[in-house]
Amino acid sequence: MSSTSRILCSRLRERIMSAEQAAELISPGANVGMSGFTGAGYPKAVPAALAERIRHHNATGGKPFRINVWTGASTAPELDGALAEVDGIEMRLPFQSDPICRGRINSGTMEYVDYHLSEVSQYAWSGFLGKMDIALIEVAGIREDGSLIPSSSVGNNKTWIEQADKIILEVNAQQNAKLEGMHDIYYGTALPPNRKPIMLTHPADRIGEAYLHCPVDKVIAVVETSAADRNSPFKAPDATSRRIAEHILEFFQREIEIGRLPKELLPIQSGVGNIPNAVLEGLDAGPFKNLTAFTEVIQDGMLKMLKSGTLGVASATAFSLSPDGIREFDENIDLYRDKIILRQQDISNHPELARRLGIIAMNGLIEADLYGNVNSTHIMGSRMMNGIGGSGDFARNGYLSIFVSPSTAKDGAISSIVPMVSHVDHTEHDVKIIVTEQGLADLRGLSPRQRAHAIINNCAHPDFRERLLDYFNRACASGRGMHTPHLLDEALSWHQRYETEGRM
Amino acid sequence: MSSTSRILCSRLRERIMSAEQAAELISPGANVGMSGFTGAGYPKAVPAALAERIRHHNATGGKPFRINVWTGASTAPELDGALAEVDGIEMRLPFQSDPICRGRINSGTMEYVDYHLSEVSQYAWSGFLGKMDIALIEVAGIREDGSLIPSSSVGNNKTWIEQADKIILEVNAQQNAKLEGMHDIYYGTALPPNRKPIMLTHPADRIGEAYLHCPVDKVIAVVETSAADRNSPFKAPDATSRRIAEHILEFFQREIEIGRLPKELLPIQSGVGNIPNAVLEGLDAGPFKNLTAFTEVIQDGMLKMLKSGTLGVASATAFSLSPDGIREFDENIDLYRDKIILRQQDISNHPELARRLGIIAMNGLIEADLYGNVNSTHIMGSRMMNGIGGSGDFARNGYLSIFVSPSTAKDGAISSIVPMVSHVDHTEHDVKIIVTEQGLADLRGLSPRQRAHAIINNCAHPDFRERLLDYFNRACASGRGMHTPHLLDEALSWHQRYETEGRM
Repeated sequence: MSSTSRILCSRLRERIMSAEQAAELISPGANVGMSGFTGAGYPKAVPAALAERIRHHNATGGKPFRINVWTGASTAPELDGALAEVDGIEMRLPFQSDPICRGRINSGTMEYVDYHLSEVSQYAWSGFLGKMDIALIEVAGIREDGSLIPSSSVGNNKTWIEQADKIILEVNAQQNAKLEGMHDIYYGTALPPNRKPIMLTHPADRIGEAYLHCPVDKVIAVVETSAADRNSPFKAPDATSRRIAEHILEFFQREIEIGRLPKELLPIQSGVGNIPNAVLEGLDAGPFKNLTAFTEVIQDGMLKMLKSGTLGVASATAFSLSPDGIREFDENIDLYRDKIILRQQDISNHPELARRLGIIAMNGLIEADLYGNVNSTHIMGSRMMNGIGGSGDFARNGYLSIFVSPSTAKDGAISSIVPMVSHVDHTEHDVKIIVTEQGLADLRGLSPRQRAHAIINNCAHPDFRERLLDYFNRACASGRGMHTPHLLDEALSWHQRYETEGRM
Repeated sequence: MSSTSRILCSRLRERIMSAEQAAELISPGANVGMSGFTGAGYPKAVPAALAERIRHHNATGGKPFRINVWTGASTAPELDGALAEVDGIEMRLPFQSDPICRGRINSGTMEYVDYHLSEVSQYAWSGFLGKMDIALIEVAGIREDGSLIPSSSVGNNKTWIEQADKIILEVNAQQNAKLEGMHDIYYGTALPPNRKPIMLTHPADRIGEAYLHCPVDKVIAVVETSAADRNSPFKAPDATSRRIAEHILEFFQREIEIGRLPKELLPIQSGVGNIPNAVLEGLDAGPFKNLTAFTEVIQDGMLKMLKSGTLGVASATAFSLSPDGIREFDENIDLYRDKIILRQQDISNHPELARRLGIIAMNGLIEADLYGNVNSTHIMGSRMMNGIGGSGDFARNGYLSIFVSPSTAKDGAISSIVPMVSHVDHTEHDVKIIVTEQGLADLRGLSPRQRAHAIINNCAHPDFRERLLDYFNRACASGRGMHTPHLLDEALSWHQRYETEGRM
């Protein structure tokens, strides 16, 4: 299939232009809704051309040229990196993982609003974030009637297309043409008071359409591209990841034995990264058959599980595959086509569905404290790492929330278990299970002091265990209050020590 | 109607006994599910008799007699107070507001598990909390077939009755007989993977039955009582409460003008207490007609709104009326019967419904920090006040989350706005609007540093404003990270100062 044949709508063929020409159509100060979720399905050409235009503009002086960038989640160097490099982003939401972006956020030269991924589209619809001027969306093709074949992520594309005044489309010839039909775009959304129940009761259910509606009149440019998604490689699971996976597997088997989980478990949500991927590999090696996933992202581990039959179906909003993973997917797409459904992120992460389906949520943590509060986003309380992503959507409303991390970081200089977290993303009310390579703490039904014992004994690294217990015991003895004992002048001292001495 | 005529089921009439006899049927160590929500519909006689039994037992030595108490939410001195007084509670969940309980929790002699109110019933069903031995439920009457007329709260009663091995019923002749028919008990609940959509799209919708099913064989005792609910008086709104209400009203009117709220608003949820009640009074004085409420609790303010027509319908799980309010309700019950629906708390607080209906959540805060994190539960980081209640259910999943508080407490010794909260119940991701008598901070779409300016300028008390700004400016200048600037050695210093000097 030649690249041109992917644009079947004659009216839109007339609007084909270069990325540079399209970039000229984006004005300084614009609110721009871009496609892209975990390095998949983001526009590949126009952001870079826009960055070049901004670089040129700023070099010639005058008022700085900056835009506001709203996406699905993280994108790639060609988008976040290129625009951040030229200081072209005024405000960024709702999630990013780009090193240059991160640098700007933490140096105070980029505003960043870190939202639950399920909520962004309703905030945009509600008008809470201001008017969206332009949407810049990658698609796998344009049909004769102007409707769009989504590419490797759906993210917020439905909302951006509906909300934007104008639309620029990138048609990427490298996206597998057989993606067509794998998407399920739900058009039953509305703002309250007009919302209706979402009639989905199983991860395999289709409740929408395979294509994105697109008002042809709003499309001001169509740009042809041919470039791969970011496709970051995964590291093979190390011993730490494998230990974490083992603890989770043992836990699942025990829960099944005592009748608190069905033998097919419940729909799995798995965060992105090497450890979640290792957990998936661990599940694949276990006795499970015909599991389901209702998650944000299809990683390599899920492809393997789909192929082996461990996983029967996976619903997500995006791929996030390694180069090996994308090769496997492309080569066996007929096998995967029927087992993967890609939805918009306000559906993949919807609280209604997370609660109804009873999601088992597995996400990473940066640090947890004695009482089960989890920090997923901030280094030492002030510096943003990536963002909360969908972890809050699933952890709060699902059936079980599991948070995983190695017990130490930076070669043992940092303990992932601290007296008090320096930032809270998941409160003590929302964290049910914490797992490190040391073990698993089951916090269900425990009071804060009981949780402290479970976390210190099961999750903390031996190098820090005694000091944590010492803090806890002295906090209990302080007489300041025994519900959540703390020493206010020491609670954040581990972080202070790291900042000044490089070790907690 | 005589008290006896409220027990129409002959098999259950045979099990009538005294409270003392019924209390003998509760064993040491039992998990006991009790009715009761915000001082309404709790058992009035058996807990006191059990407390007396425990007092006697403990006076004679031997292994202490303690039970685990699970309720809907807070109860009253006759339950929490009486049992805590004799040290009869080992573990308490999910919410309490009793001073004696609070003392035991904070002295470390009672375990307390503070859960989102929507989640408790699913945790009990899932088996996460252990087996429920006995349910102790107040009802307004027993029908011929053994089904139960709920009283002034529903709470977790449906789940307790289903889950408990044995049931003790208290039939309270002082509950208005015309409560019959006002309840809507939903029997479509299930554990995943068998959950179905909850087909409720308007607060007035009825999706269930007026009565609680009750397996007669499980009922081991029926106790007749005649006692009023706690019915705490409300204070008349003071100037501070009225200012807060004014700010919220202005905000609503502005949102309507710019089209971000319909003129009937969206269903209101209002926390319990004098300030929320003042906000309701403020709404009643405003231009609104035919509003709806989808909330936990019907307070006095809502009765007035229903009577005036400001409110068309109110859905809740319990009443929480003053003595004047209960008199008004009893005298005009025919007017209120058609406008009030009482549901179980897993429905009144359900994330699916909070999101679908687009709840406007209004709840109190103990303290908020510069970046919009809210502490609703802990005094100075360690001492439990009451609990998170349903605030998280509504704030996370609703359309707008509004948190309210006077800007100072303890005659100005405490600032409600602090550099860093000492405990987090609602994260920066979940807090949209903060209101004090000083003004309203609209945090939607703002980055953390932008939020800090909005909160300091609009919400902080002038006595603390400069010091907050000074902290913020020095944190920004520290070079530690500009996303959420903090000085780790000062972040909790305001709390420390209060603990040592009695002033922040």
